[in-house]
Amino acid sequence: MNYPKSHFSSLVKHLENRAQLTEEQMDAILDQIEVVHLKKREVFLKAGEVCKYEGYINRGCIRVFFTDHKAHEHVVQLAFEDWWIADLMSFFTGLPANYSIEALEETELFLLERSKADHLFKSVPPFETIFRILLQSAYVSLQKRVIANMSQSAEERYLELTRKYPQMELRVAQHHIASYLGITPEALSRIRKNIIEKMKKQ
Amino acid sequence: MNYPKSHFSSLVKHLENRAQLTEEQMDAILDQIEVVHLKKREVFLKAGEVCKYEGYINRGCIRVFFTDHKAHEHVVQLAFEDWWIADLMSFFTGLPANYSIEALEETELFLLERSKADHLFKSVPPFETIFRILLQSAYVSLQKRVIANMSQSAEERYLELTRKYPQMELRVAQHHIASYLGITPEALSRIRKNIIEKMKKQ
Repeated sequence: MNYPKSHFSSLVKHLENRAQLTEEQMDAILDQIEVVHLKKREVFLKAGEVCKYEGYINRGCIRVFFTDHKAHEHVVQLAFEDWWIADLMSFFTGLPANYSIEALEETELFLLERSKADHLFKSVPPFETIFRILLQSAYVSLQKRVIANMSQSAEERYLELTRKYPQMELRVAQHHIASYLGITPEALSRIRKNIIEKMKKQ
Repeated sequence: MNYPKSHFSSLVKHLENRAQLTEEQMDAILDQIEVVHLKKREVFLKAGEVCKYEGYINRGCIRVFFTDHKAHEHVVQLAFEDWWIADLMSFFTGLPANYSIEALEETELFLLERSKADHLFKSVPPFETIFRILLQSAYVSLQKRVIANMSQSAEERYLELTRKYPQMELRVAQHHIASYLGITPEALSRIRKNIIEKMKKQ
């Protein structure tokens, strides 16, 4: 580590919120972390490569997307500070990633390599607890997304997104938000106009 | 336990394949298991209730489905022997389930209650490893499903489903398979005819 421990204070809090760790255990985790800086639009992972790292966003904003065989991009995740990003399928299985990962702003990631995670599961048992809890949350988010796509209109999903993540509108381009919602930028623009009209009438 | 240990041999193998357990640890896990029998079409979980159990299918076949606000049912999972079923979101968070779970055949489930799982995470550390590995697989399956829906035609998804799970066609009604694929039974029937035509020409 070339950084003072204080540089990792967000991550330390993030871990402490999920399980009890001794100072030695926390140090053992931080010892395995690599730091990487991405420029705006820099690609961190390209679909087809193996996703070797889970990345914790210390600063910045990330887009995870899928490119279909017609070369259309579908945004599957928009992530900010204190979130983990990865192609978890690839990270767990070692198979080529389906997703690409790109920085939407200058971004600092704390990286944990797969083999180092496996090592920590054995040497620091509470780390396995933390990882299980993070996995539970990731699963719950994905399940909610699948259900929202089956049951909510694009307008409902847009309202929920902006209510839950107010920073979304300020930090992410409209066409990425539209892609995340599975609609065209024009449809998103109509939805926004609609909402403004409704608010005026109230 | 009113059953001899041999009754749980599939589950024992399932657990042993994922982590090393002493005999005492295995017994501690089996001690927490409840056995339930479902009749064909019996509902195990109703959307809106809290999902208190993870269920391991020892025998039978299960349908997990979501009912949208227009009362349309969407099959999200079809599961057979040696699979776990639950509304994991509800199981982890304690919030009402989005999914309903129903037996498609006479089914025997081995149940693990949430509080008992939490107890085992602490008292039997390899059980937490097993659970993490199962969660990883569940996440990977869900991610693959999301991507398949974005990138593959219904025919491609149908072919993959029947190749991966040949028993699907024999044990599950066509309208449930259609619902799992997100298409109408009529569309599935056309797809099957199409495939047969192609095979004849080869």
